[in-house]
Amino acid sequence: MNKRTVIYILGWVLFIEGLAMQASTIVGLWYHESTYVYFLFTGLALILLGGIVILNKPKKFYMQRKDGFAATAMSWIVLSLAGAVPLWLSGSIPSFIDAFFETVSGFTTTGATILQDIEALDNCMLFWRSLSHFLGGMGVIVFLLALIPKLGGNAGINLMKAESTGPEVDKTMPKLRQYAMVLYSIYVGLTVIETILLMCGGMYFFDAVTTAMATAGTGGFALYNNSIAHYNSYYLQGVVSVFMMLFGLNFYVYILILTKKIKSILKIEEIWWYLGIIGFSTLVIGINIMNIYKNAFDSFHQSFFYVSSIMSSTGFAIDNTDKWPELSKAIICVVTCIGACAGSTGGGFKVSRILILCKEARKEFRLIVHPRTVQTVKVNGKKVSHEVTRNVSVYLIVYILIVVFSTALISINGFDFTTNFTSVLATFNNTGPGFSIVGSAGNYSSFSIFSKIVFIFNMLAGRLEIYPMLLIFMPAAWKKN
Amino acid sequence: MNKRTVIYILGWVLFIEGLAMQASTIVGLWYHESTYVYFLFTGLALILLGGIVILNKPKKFYMQRKDGFAATAMSWIVLSLAGAVPLWLSGSIPSFIDAFFETVSGFTTTGATILQDIEALDNCMLFWRSLSHFLGGMGVIVFLLALIPKLGGNAGINLMKAESTGPEVDKTMPKLRQYAMVLYSIYVGLTVIETILLMCGGMYFFDAVTTAMATAGTGGFALYNNSIAHYNSYYLQGVVSVFMMLFGLNFYVYILILTKKIKSILKIEEIWWYLGIIGFSTLVIGINIMNIYKNAFDSFHQSFFYVSSIMSSTGFAIDNTDKWPELSKAIICVVTCIGACAGSTGGGFKVSRILILCKEARKEFRLIVHPRTVQTVKVNGKKVSHEVTRNVSVYLIVYILIVVFSTALISINGFDFTTNFTSVLATFNNTGPGFSIVGSAGNYSSFSIFSKIVFIFNMLAGRLEIYPMLLIFMPAAWKKN
Repeated sequence: MNKRTVIYILGWVLFIEGLAMQASTIVGLWYHESTYVYFLFTGLALILLGGIVILNKPKKFYMQRKDGFAATAMSWIVLSLAGAVPLWLSGSIPSFIDAFFETVSGFTTTGATILQDIEALDNCMLFWRSLSHFLGGMGVIVFLLALIPKLGGNAGINLMKAESTGPEVDKTMPKLRQYAMVLYSIYVGLTVIETILLMCGGMYFFDAVTTAMATAGTGGFALYNNSIAHYNSYYLQGVVSVFMMLFGLNFYVYILILTKKIKSILKIEEIWWYLGIIGFSTLVIGINIMNIYKNAFDSFHQSFFYVSSIMSSTGFAIDNTDKWPELSKAIICVVTCIGACAGSTGGGFKVSRILILCKEARKEFRLIVHPRTVQTVKVNGKKVSHEVTRNVSVYLIVYILIVVFSTALISINGFDFTTNFTSVLATFNNTGPGFSIVGSAGNYSSFSIFSKIVFIFNMLAGRLEIYPMLLIFMPAAWKKN
Repeated sequence: MNKRTVIYILGWVLFIEGLAMQASTIVGLWYHESTYVYFLFTGLALILLGGIVILNKPKKFYMQRKDGFAATAMSWIVLSLAGAVPLWLSGSIPSFIDAFFETVSGFTTTGATILQDIEALDNCMLFWRSLSHFLGGMGVIVFLLALIPKLGGNAGINLMKAESTGPEVDKTMPKLRQYAMVLYSIYVGLTVIETILLMCGGMYFFDAVTTAMATAGTGGFALYNNSIAHYNSYYLQGVVSVFMMLFGLNFYVYILILTKKIKSILKIEEIWWYLGIIGFSTLVIGINIMNIYKNAFDSFHQSFFYVSSIMSSTGFAIDNTDKWPELSKAIICVVTCIGACAGSTGGGFKVSRILILCKEARKEFRLIVHPRTVQTVKVNGKKVSHEVTRNVSVYLIVYILIVVFSTALISINGFDFTTNFTSVLATFNNTGPGFSIVGSAGNYSSFSIFSKIVFIFNMLAGRLEIYPMLLIFMPAAWKKN
C-alpha cells in the first residue's frame, strides 16, 4: 500500500472537516449557544493537523485499486471519529461510542439515532448532524477530487470508484475533476431549490436548510422527535417526498438534462425500474393502509412519502409506520434492500444491480428452454460484460453474508426477530428506521455497545459498498506494493 | 416438448403410487381400520390408469433438459394430487387443499402439517404420511430409473438432473440404472438399520418403521403431537438425531465406504463444512440455552437434536424451540437456509452451493489485493468451471426472489413478521417448522387457502430446486420441440 498518499488524503479530509465545523460554530454563535466552542476548537485542531499533513505533500500520487479502497475506508472512519468529538465533549451525547454511532450514521446518510430526545440538542449540534448528511451524501472524496487538481488520473479514479455508489464508474471518464465539480454543482443546486421551496411553504430558514441537506444526502436526521410529521402541511411533506425521490435518482440524469439530452434519459432502464418500484409500492401500500387513514388522499400521501423515503434510503417519517399492516411492512423491507439508483446519494443494493441480476436469471431460463442459442444480458441497450455480472453476483453473496452474520450478532441482545433483522437492514442499507424497537418512532439507544459497533461497521460497509470496509481487515492489503 | 414421453413417465408414477398405497391398505387391515378401503380403491384406480398409459409405450425416449424438468415437475404435482385423495375422501382431512398441502409436504419431505391433532388419525393414514416422505426423499423418478431399463441414457439423465439435489449430477455417469439401484439400496439399508436400532431401544415396530422412513426422507412427520418428544429416552432421541445427520450427507460418501475408498471421503470438502456447521451451531446454541435446561448434557442433547434436524431439513422436534433465546433462533434460521449436502435426501440451499459462493467471493477479494494474478475457484481440489459458478449464482438470485415474493404474499394474512418469514423459509427449504405460529409446537392450519397454495408451490420448488417448477409456467416450455 502506498501509505504516503493515503495519509495525504486523510490530511485533506481532516482539513475540510475542520473548515466544515466552522459552519456549526457560526450557527452556535448566531443562536447564542455556549456549545459553539466545541466546534471552534475541534475544528481548529483538525485544520492544524490536516494542514501539517497536507504541507508534507508526496512526490507521486500512485494508487492501485486496493489503495483507493483502503484510503476511502480510512477517510470515512477518521472523518467520523473526529466528527464525534464536539457531540461528545459538549456532553450532548455523553458516551463516545454513542457519539461515534451518531456521526457515522450522519456521514453514511443512514439517519439512525441513539438520541431519545432530539429536541434537547443545541441548534449547532443539530446543524452538524444535518451537515454530516450533506457531506457524506455526495462523498468527501468526490469533494476532494473537485478541489485538488493533482488528484485526477489513476489515483483519483480509484478513490472515486471506492466512494461512488452502484456497480460501475465509467472507466473512460475524461476529466475527473470537472466531473466531480459538475456532480457537486447539481447537488448544491438541487439542495438550494428544495430550501427555497420549503421556505415558500412557511418553513423557517434554519429548518429548511437542515431538512434540505438531510434530504440531499438521503440521510434522515430531522430536528424534531416526530421527524417531518412536525411540519403538519401536505405541501411541505410533499416537497420533501418528491425531493427524496429525486436525490435517489442516478445523477447522470441531471447531467443529461443540463446538456439537453432528454431523449437519452428515456433509454436508462434503471430510472424506469426505480420509478416503477416506487409507483407500484405506493399503490399497494396506499390501498393496504386505506382503513388506517381518514381518506384515500391521506393514505396515498402517507404511502408515497414513506416509500420515497425508504427507497431513496432517507428515512424521514410522517407517522409511526409500525402500526401499518404486515404486507405494507414486508414491502417496506424489500424496498429498504433494493435502495436507490447507482450514482445517487442513496444507499441499498441499488436498482441497477437488481436489474442486472434479474436479467441474468432470465438468461438462464432462456438457456434451458432454448439450449442451443446465445443469450446475452443487455442493460440500456448495451451488452453487460461477463465481468460486471460476476462482480454483481459476488456483491450479492457478500451482501447476504453480512446481513446474516450481523443479524446473528444483533440477536445476542435478545430483542425480537423483527427488531434484529430490520435494524440490520436499516443500517446496512443506510436507511435508518426499521420496525419494532427501531421503527420510525423508535431509536437505537437500547442496544449494547457491541451491537452499536456492529451497526457502525454495517453503516460504513453499506455506504462504501462493502469492499473497502472488508479490505482494511485483510493483512495483505496493508503490505507494501 | 415431447409430450408422449412425459405422459409415459406420469403413467409409471401413478402406477407405482397405486402399488405403494397397498402398503397402507395392509396397515389398515392389520389395525382393523375401516379407512383402509380408501387406499385400496384409490390405489387400484391408479394402478389401472397408470397401467393403461404404460401399455401405450412411446417408440422413442427422447428428452431435452426442459422436457426432463417439465416431466419431473408434472410427476410431483400429479403424485401429490393423487396421494391426497385417500386423506380427503376418508374425511381424515376434510378440505382437499389441506389434504393436498399435507401430501405435498409429505412427498417434498417438508413435514409441515395443517393437522392440529395428529394422533386423531388412523394408523393407515399415519403410515401413508410417513411413506410419502420415504418415496419423496430419494425421489420417485430415481426409483423409476432403477426400475425401468429403457429409461437410461439421454432421457434418464435429464430426469435425474431435475430430481436430484445439489448443483451438479455427474454428466459422465456410466450406468444410470445401476447407479439409481445402488442409491436406493443404500437408502433402504440405512432405513432398516435405523428401524432395528430404534426397536432395540424399546420402540414399537410400527413407530420404528414410520420414524425411520420419516428420518430417511428427511421429512419430519411424526406419529404424535409432540413429535419425537413422545419417546422420552436419550437413546431413542439420540439415534434419530444421528440418523438425521447421516441422511443429510452426500450419498456419494456411502458409495465410497462400500467401495472401500475411505481416503477419498477426506477430500470431500462439503462433508467437513456440513459437519463443521452442525458442530459449531450445536456448540453455540448449547451454551446459549444452558439456563433453560437442567444440565449441560441436556442442553447439548437438545441443541444437537434440533440442529441436526434442521440442517438435514427433517424438522423433528423434542421441545418447543420457540422459547429459545433469539441468538439460537437466528442460528436455526441460518441453518434452515443452508440445508443439507448435495446428493442427499435433504433440502435447503445446499452446503456445496454455499461453499462455491464463498470461494467465489474470496476470489474477488484476492483479485482486488493481487490484481495481476489468476485466481480460480477449487472444490475438492478440482477447478470449478465458470459455468457451474454462474449457475449457482443464478440459483441464489432466484432463491432470494422466491423468498422475498413469498414472504410478501404470506404477509397478506396479517400474522407477525417472524411467522411470515420463517414459514416461507421452512417450506421452501423443506424443513417444516419455523418460529412463532409455525414453531416446532405449532402448525400451518391457520393460514388462508391462498397462503397454502403459496406454500405448496414453495415446497415443490424447494424439493425440485426451483427450475422445474418455474419452467412449467413458461409457455415456451410447452411448445413442440
